[in-house]
Amino acid sequence: MADRVGVGLVSVGWMGRLHSRAYLAARHHFPELPLRPELVVAADPDAGGRAYATDVLGYGEAVADHRDLIGRDDVDVVSICSPNFLHREIALAAIAAGKPFWIEKPMGRGATESGEIARAAAERGIVNAVGFNYRHAPAVAKARELVHAGALGRITNVRVSLLADYSSDPAGALTWRFRRDRAVSGVLGDLLSHGVDLVQHVVGRIARVSALTETFIRERPLPAAGAASHFSRGNEGGPAGTVENEDYAAVLARLDDGVAAVLESSRVAIGPRAEYGLEVYGTKGSLRWDFQRMNELRLADDASGYRTIMAGPGFGHFERFQPGAGTSMGFDDLKTIEAAQFLASVAEGRQLAPSAADAWSAASVVDAALESAASGRWIDIRALEPDA
Amino acid sequence: MADRVGVGLVSVGWMGRLHSRAYLAARHHFPELPLRPELVVAADPDAGGRAYATDVLGYGEAVADHRDLIGRDDVDVVSICSPNFLHREIALAAIAAGKPFWIEKPMGRGATESGEIARAAAERGIVNAVGFNYRHAPAVAKARELVHAGALGRITNVRVSLLADYSSDPAGALTWRFRRDRAVSGVLGDLLSHGVDLVQHVVGRIARVSALTETFIRERPLPAAGAASHFSRGNEGGPAGTVENEDYAAVLARLDDGVAAVLESSRVAIGPRAEYGLEVYGTKGSLRWDFQRMNELRLADDASGYRTIMAGPGFGHFERFQPGAGTSMGFDDLKTIEAAQFLASVAEGRQLAPSAADAWSAASVVDAALESAASGRWIDIRALEPDA
Amino acid sequence: MADRVGVGLVSVGWMGRLHSRAYLAARHHFPELPLRPELVVAADPDAGGRAYATDVLGYGEAVADHRDLIGRDDVDVVSICSPNFLHREIALAAIAAGKPFWIEKPMGRGATESGEIARAAAERGIVNAVGFNYRHAPAVAKARELVHAGALGRITNVRVSLLADYSSDPAGALTWRFRRDRAVSGVLGDLLSHGVDLVQHVVGRIARVSALTETFIRERPLPAAGAASHFSRGNEGGPAGTVENEDYAAVLARLDDGVAAVLESSRVAIGPRAEYGLEVYGTKGSLRWDFQRMNELRLADDASGYRTIMAGPGFGHFERFQPGAGTSMGFDDLKTIEAAQFLASVAEGRQLAPSAADAWSAASVVDAALESAASGRWIDIRALEPDA
Amino acid sequence: MADRVGVGLVSVGWMGRLHSRAYLAARHHFPELPLRPELVVAADPDAGGRAYATDVLGYGEAVADHRDLIGRDDVDVVSICSPNFLHREIALAAIAAGKPFWIEKPMGRGATESGEIARAAAERGIVNAVGFNYRHAPAVAKARELVHAGALGRITNVRVSLLADYSSDPAGALTWRFRRDRAVSGVLGDLLSHGVDLVQHVVGRIARVSALTETFIRERPLPAAGAASHFSRGNEGGPAGTVENEDYAAVLARLDDGVAAVLESSRVAIGPRAEYGLEVYGTKGSLRWDFQRMNELRLADDASGYRTIMAGPGFGHFERFQPGAGTSMGFDDLKTIEAAQFLASVAEGRQLAPSAADAWSAASVVDAALESAASGRWIDIRALEPDA
Repeated sequence: MADRVGVGLVSVGWMGRLHSRAYLAARHHFPELPLRPELVVAADPDAGGRAYATDVLGYGEAVADHRDLIGRDDVDVVSICSPNFLHREIALAAIAAGKPFWIEKPMGRGATESGEIARAAAERGIVNAVGFNYRHAPAVAKARELVHAGALGRITNVRVSLLADYSSDPAGALTWRFRRDRAVSGVLGDLLSHGVDLVQHVVGRIARVSALTETFIRERPLPAAGAASHFSRGNEGGPAGTVENEDYAAVLARLDDGVAAVLESSRVAIGPRAEYGLEVYGTKGSLRWDFQRMNELRLADDASGYRTIMAGPGFGHFERFQPGAGTSMGFDDLKTIEAAQFLASVAEGRQLAPSAADAWSAASVVDAALESAASGRWIDIRALEPDA
Repeated sequence: MADRVGVGLVSVGWMGRLHSRAYLAARHHFPELPLRPELVVAADPDAGGRAYATDVLGYGEAVADHRDLIGRDDVDVVSICSPNFLHREIALAAIAAGKPFWIEKPMGRGATESGEIARAAAERGIVNAVGFNYRHAPAVAKARELVHAGALGRITNVRVSLLADYSSDPAGALTWRFRRDRAVSGVLGDLLSHGVDLVQHVVGRIARVSALTETFIRERPLPAAGAASHFSRGNEGGPAGTVENEDYAAVLARLDDGVAAVLESSRVAIGPRAEYGLEVYGTKGSLRWDFQRMNELRLADDASGYRTIMAGPGFGHFERFQPGAGTSMGFDDLKTIEAAQFLASVAEGRQLAPSAADAWSAASVVDAALESAASGRWIDIRALEPDA
Repeated sequence: MADRVGVGLVSVGWMGRLHSRAYLAARHHFPELPLRPELVVAADPDAGGRAYATDVLGYGEAVADHRDLIGRDDVDVVSICSPNFLHREIALAAIAAGKPFWIEKPMGRGATESGEIARAAAERGIVNAVGFNYRHAPAVAKARELVHAGALGRITNVRVSLLADYSSDPAGALTWRFRRDRAVSGVLGDLLSHGVDLVQHVVGRIARVSALTETFIRERPLPAAGAASHFSRGNEGGPAGTVENEDYAAVLARLDDGVAAVLESSRVAIGPRAEYGLEVYGTKGSLRWDFQRMNELRLADDASGYRTIMAGPGFGHFERFQPGAGTSMGFDDLKTIEAAQFLASVAEGRQLAPSAADAWSAASVVDAALESAASGRWIDIRALEPDA
Repeated sequence: MADRVGVGLVSVGWMGRLHSRAYLAARHHFPELPLRPELVVAADPDAGGRAYATDVLGYGEAVADHRDLIGRDDVDVVSICSPNFLHREIALAAIAAGKPFWIEKPMGRGATESGEIARAAAERGIVNAVGFNYRHAPAVAKARELVHAGALGRITNVRVSLLADYSSDPAGALTWRFRRDRAVSGVLGDLLSHGVDLVQHVVGRIARVSALTETFIRERPLPAAGAASHFSRGNEGGPAGTVENEDYAAVLARLDDGVAAVLESSRVAIGPRAEYGLEVYGTKGSLRWDFQRMNELRLADDASGYRTIMAGPGFGHFERFQPGAGTSMGFDDLKTIEAAQFLASVAEGRQLAPSAADAWSAASVVDAALESAASGRWIDIRALEPDA
């Protein structure tokens, strides 16, 4: 029989809802998990969020302040889905309380906060999971497997390009995401960090970067109270404020073993909706993946061109979700896999999911890119401390 | 507060599991539903299926015989996911017991059984839902909306093509699907019926057909006991039997208003995995959709070419699942929509989902296609009776 | 040294110009040809056409009447690019004069005229070429080679779909193409005949058909004098006339060896511009080609999906035109190959190019489709006479 | 009547043949040109090349040494298609002789030689053309027109990616292209220079770069005598030598007006054959083009996604080649446009085609990229001298 594990959720936005559903779905798709999550308590300053938690998500209780949640005896694990600038405080509290946590990315404000969290978790031996969802796409799992099996030969170069339009409307509100004190970076932390993680997960560690950043939309209307989503619009005709971080970044990189990489990201592209592409080239072939067609992998394993392969049995955890290739998994399924990896980490006491250390590593690359863009120089990524 | 509705499930295969998860998911994505499904009892002759129902799906109880399920007081609605040849008996029992039912397709063995079920449901006023999943894809909902709003002008012709490889391996077992007494038709009922429903849902009623059918793989190995899935393999080296129904069908059709249609389907194609495509042409434009890329709609609303539009807010129920275009819904989400429509039908006492009458209509087209293929003549579709 | 061959051209429209350029280009791409074409004389009733022939194309002379061309001693071969309804007279004159001819399609008005031409050519032993251009695409040549080598296993079914928008504008003029006495059929002869030829060239002879045809735009403005192209517009505000042949056709077919086929064509589709697609399915794989991306072949030679292969060396005559895959051949290059095959036929005295007999065969299928659409019955294709 | 213009060709390889055919084709597609090219003399040290020139291309004469060609009275213009390292000498000779020249790219060995040629041509007022073929694709012409008309709003960022496999085979010979003294750069000059020109032609001048380069295949077999093509293979089992220039380059760039750019190129990619892509993003939309599908333009002019537009009338010079969208132009047609622009420049005495100054500009960017890759610093592009 599976043991009950009590879930405490901080923040009932898109990601908080998704974490909650993923906990419930995990037992259907990973029935061997020895833990059965119970949605115990959700924290949200907003009454609507709290009502949603109890009435729709099925939490037993909801509170306004996350500080009333973490220490509770019936809370065994914590999902941290608050705005980024609160992550450090909440994560450190969870670690202090000895509670495994599942945290959305970017994990902290920059490498400093991310490092604090990662080191504290490592010191206390607290397992965790970070929301690098794209890793979990079965086609990405297959891509990593192919790369590691040498199907592409020696890897020569990598390209990730994360182009989104979520901030392309100049009438979009100047939420916390555009403020340096709250979010530090813009698209680098919000999107490109995913690309950094994909490169590091599929190919290897990024060692050095040269970057260029730009803010294309320099002013935005101030937000209505509470506006926080990627799609919130500003007060029409109201006052505007300055966008303090980058809309766009392009990064040249070198990996540890000489592999070259180009990473690019925009939050103001018009045309791509959520085109998060990964391309890996080697001496024997190449592969391509795009989040918009997340169930497809394009593979050239000889010189004759790309084969479009639909994810199917043998691709990561595909078989747990669908019976045959061609039937699509959805984005939420990736979070179910993430939940399952987190729960398995908790059950086994060893880190299985993308971890705080991975998030710290990605944040270090992002910080180095910011530094490079400011200085015009190549920047080495500071090696993570040995225990992280 | 939502009222409890007790669910009884017949058959714990792929579809039975999916129905079960969809009932649970419905309340997350359709929180306004006044009914809260409770998984009461599942019936399956196989002990493994029964264990899965209670241990993984969360049914309170499991029984071997569906006859011990339908009449129970704590069962308010019935999900019928058994092999096709048992549908009639179970559906008529549910109707007799006054229980709304959600049934997979093809609903009956041919139009005769389908008509029996549809008429019985109509006579008794029992709401129901039929698993014409593809209707629920937000891009298909948008396609229908565009067609009905005249965005393509007057519709001239339609094409559906459902190409799958699930029976392409000659070593695939001769399950009930290949037997005339069990399944009647082959790919016509199993796949092309979806295409018929899509045409009728998006454009209009099919009035006449001329068809060609063919069985390309004429012998298959006999199945191991219990083998029933699309992907079961036969006993290697064991005896073979004759495939009794068609692997492939091509159909010319006329719709009520003179629209021309071509429908084609194969279960033995190699290359397409589950390429279920719909194309609608009109005097002002055309659109295309393919299940393999179910989150995309290709629209030509002027002469300059196709725009690839990612499903997003404004496309059917997309917004209930994902926050923005580019983030993929999965196949299971379509069943969640189906569950919600079924539950809403039950709550409101009026038919909202694709119904038994729709399934009867599709079966009539399938039967006419079989008759045409046998006789070499155009066959008129018999109009459904007024009360169906 | 290559012998001089004098070319006489009938009609200086798009195709006449293209034939002329193709003769000149042939010696560059097929330098081993023992004949060197010389553009001797062009016939066109229009003075502008005659001026273009001499001033731009480089003909030595131009005449108004084709009857002043065919018999000339310095004319060794004749290119027949006139409107379709004049083909019979001109072709028979060329045959009577013992002159090899290269004729555009549809060759005659229906199978009757086509048969007259083909039989006359056969009786007199006059080599010829018919403008079934798409055969010459290197990717189609490769497709045929793969099919014949068994790379797809036993062929099960074929699909061709020729969707164009050239008549989609209701303001397009009612040229001869829309008149039964001039063109007989509409899209069947103009486009679908290409599809018939592709099926027969790549897979095998069509034996029986069941067809549906429709005219979606039933009236068009009368043309200005001389309007003859696919894109001519009618007199605005002027009188309209009745379209006498079909805009759309869909055909079910059986090939000699039991292969099933679906052929579909529209001249009024909006979205596709010139989407002429061929798909061949077999027991081991399938392939797809589309004229709009004529340098690509999509091949599934196992169950894992389609590989997009750029035409390159080893694909038909590709190597004569471009040095490597990825660099595109154009449509005109296909006519250069056609010219070269015609000239090689002339030089060797044996039929190498798609021939009058092929055109007669395609016309027989077209006629059978018209008969089937009118009668609602399956129609057997009359076998061609042995000497054709 | 058009005046005769005598053509002298230096080097009868792929490009020399293509120039020759393009001169002949130009009069068909640009009949208004007041010059009629006559192929007078070709120079090639190889007897086979000379024979091809006279026997196939139709030159009146062929000589071994280009020095016996440039000064001839009957040579009015010179096509320079020799290996890159001879360009400077030949171009300066043509300029000294007052002969307009059409030269392949990269024009010189680096910016130094390119600048010498460009300055000399400017000083002497000699019109010229440089083989930046991709500019001439009608879809690229349309892209430029859309960008300049503001259809994409204010341009924010650009991406070009030129991925080819022509050197991906490690058995490919170590021809002059891989030697620093002969070719200077590798893929930067050979391919990325095209990308630089596309960016500068469609959007604007590149001002600064930060680059990374890498040689992935460090040794190659020595070539057989005369091996010079992109596809020559080395002597099997023979001695190998060191590849002296880069297989891969990635470049961050800033344009004059703050536009960001990423340029990337590989000659050893496996999968893409000749994938030369251009993407332009602006505040109102974006567009994409790829040489492999050179007749298509993908345009997002609102937020709903990309429309795939087939090149057609209204796209550059498309109408001179094909009657309607969907019928493909080929690569050679781009050279015909280039020839016509060169001839028009000669006739009008003003520079119309991509010029030596454009080539110098591209070479300056390439040189800056090499310098950046070596130094790890951002490098400003030296402004061209005013008279260039």
